Amino acid sequence: MTTTKKITQRLTCESFKQWIQGLDAFLFDCDGVLWRGATPIKGAANMISLLRSLDKRVVFVTNNATNSRATYVKKFASQGIIADEADIVTSAWATAQYMKQQKIEGKVYMVGEAGLQTELELEGYQVSGMEHSDIKGLPHVPTIDMDTKAVVCGLDRHFSYYKMAYATACVLQIPNCHFIGTNPDSTYPTDGAIVPGGGSLVHMLEFAIGHPPEAVCGKPSQDLLQTIITTYKLNPSRTCMVGDRLSTDIEFGNAGGLQTLLVLTGIANESDLSNIDNANHVPDHYVDSIDAINQFQAATLEN
Amino acid sequence: MTTTKKITQRLTCESFKQWIQGLDAFLFDCDGVLWRGATPIKGAANMISLLRSLDKRVVFVTNNATNSRATYVKKFASQGIIADEADIVTSAWATAQYMKQQKIEGKVYMVGEAGLQTELELEGYQVSGMEHSDIKGLPHVPTIDMDTKAVVCGLDRHFSYYKMAYATACVLQIPNCHFIGTNPDSTYPTDGAIVPGGGSLVHMLEFAIGHPPEAVCGKPSQDLLQTIITTYKLNPSRTCMVGDRLSTDIEFGNAGGLQTLLVLTGIANESDLSNIDNANHVPDHYVDSIDAINQFQAATLEN
Repeated sequence: MTTTKKITQRLTCESFKQWIQGLDAFLFDCDGVLWRGATPIKGAANMISLLRSLDKRVVFVTNNATNSRATYVKKFASQGIIADEADIVTSAWATAQYMKQQKIEGKVYMVGEAGLQTELELEGYQVSGMEHSDIKGLPHVPTIDMDTKAVVCGLDRHFSYYKMAYATACVLQIPNCHFIGTNPDSTYPTDGAIVPGGGSLVHMLEFAIGHPPEAVCGKPSQDLLQTIITTYKLNPSRTCMVGDRLSTDIEFGNAGGLQTLLVLTGIANESDLSNIDNANHVPDHYVDSIDAINQFQAATLEN
Repeated sequence: MTTTKKITQRLTCESFKQWIQGLDAFLFDCDGVLWRGATPIKGAANMISLLRSLDKRVVFVTNNATNSRATYVKKFASQGIIADEADIVTSAWATAQYMKQQKIEGKVYMVGEAGLQTELELEGYQVSGMEHSDIKGLPHVPTIDMDTKAVVCGLDRHFSYYKMAYATACVLQIPNCHFIGTNPDSTYPTDGAIVPGGGSLVHMLEFAIGHPPEAVCGKPSQDLLQTIITTYKLNPSRTCMVGDRLSTDIEFGNAGGLQTLLVLTGIANESDLSNIDNANHVPDHYVDSIDAINQFQAATLEN
């Protein structure tokens, strides 16, 4: 089989005008693109305003499962970005939607944080797990609730060995208990460091349980992309996915026929671009930072 | 390539006499073989006495990294088994030996429990990590000690997100920082349940860090087996590895040319024997429980 190898182009002042005219909508990853931990990426708020002024639809698609969409609205506001819940897709929300589509009902054991619990509860699930954060060690073997229908695992910065043992026991001991991951991210960028992401916790459970989760609901899930395309009535070829991670954001967009733009303010760096071994991980374009959009637009207006 | 497929034989009264006469030494796994959590496996203490009375050398080889050998001596005593430190090989001890052989010196960051810390300190390492068990969430990005020479990960039932983030940051940020796992066990059997093992924690770090550890020191490491063969002056073909897990104990013995005996009181069950996809995981013999040795010997004496 002969394939033409795609080369990632740096987006420049020259190529910008044609690129932006070819797009109606943008899907934005958040951590590493718009902010990094509590620190905004320079120019992010202006860039969002700019795109909206150009009549582009903007949707935020984050694999962060620790916040509810309601909490995200406040986070966006704190960064100077106006967004309401309808503009925000999180892997926590995606997980709740997946479970509803699979007709899972009832009790859920969660390794995760408050935002995931909120999104699951909004879909009617009875969620437990948070109460096990403070159990030290393995004081006793978990007595599991045999009515548990699913174990859901996402980033949980208060996880405990007891919680992981409880989740493992549910999947191993309860017939047909679902095992679902919120997102595959091995790490996430925060202020000054790369720290373990939700995917690392999913991986630990997967290894203990002995099989992978039936679904990992965040990017690059194409089920999620189809839900987004339908919900927001997007034309894939005129939509651009903007992200900082090749294996989630860029694969998500490429696999779905979207345009893709990599920013270098998060996980991936410029040298990663020359070491990609998966064709779906090659972005169409890249910029150092999302602020480049503001600069290109200003330069376009000057000319 | 044509290979004769090895079939596991159930050890019987009839085959016992020839089997035991062909052996000078036994390596025993502990959890799931001699005990399960705090509960002794019936007949275990008698069986060890019996083998010693038959002049067989008995060595205990456990992948459990949470206890020091000194603590194990007490554990054995509580189970009615006399053992001193020289009879006991743990993955914690094996890890300290590996590090010494690799000429690693100085500071170590540990995801692990007190027994691992003890064994590392006995070899002169400065160990930190335990003090991070009580840090809730990720209150701040870890400021790592750039003099850390190695991250060692084993079972840690007080692990915390902060600890995992610290360990990840050390390997990602410190040039040439070693990353070493104590043992690969995905689970271990305890009273009434299967719970995550040290290998699950190693797997989480491996995924967050982006590469596997340079070594996993417990069974089935053949470096460890060679150390044991040399230390105890064993003849491999006249030594039997007895264990409950195909992927650690049985592989460990088979790969080193030992005889292997599977017991069904721990992880593996009888149906697993018909679903083995790795030739090194096929035991030579199996028994329901180690108590079978006592029964076979009694029957042999009666005849």
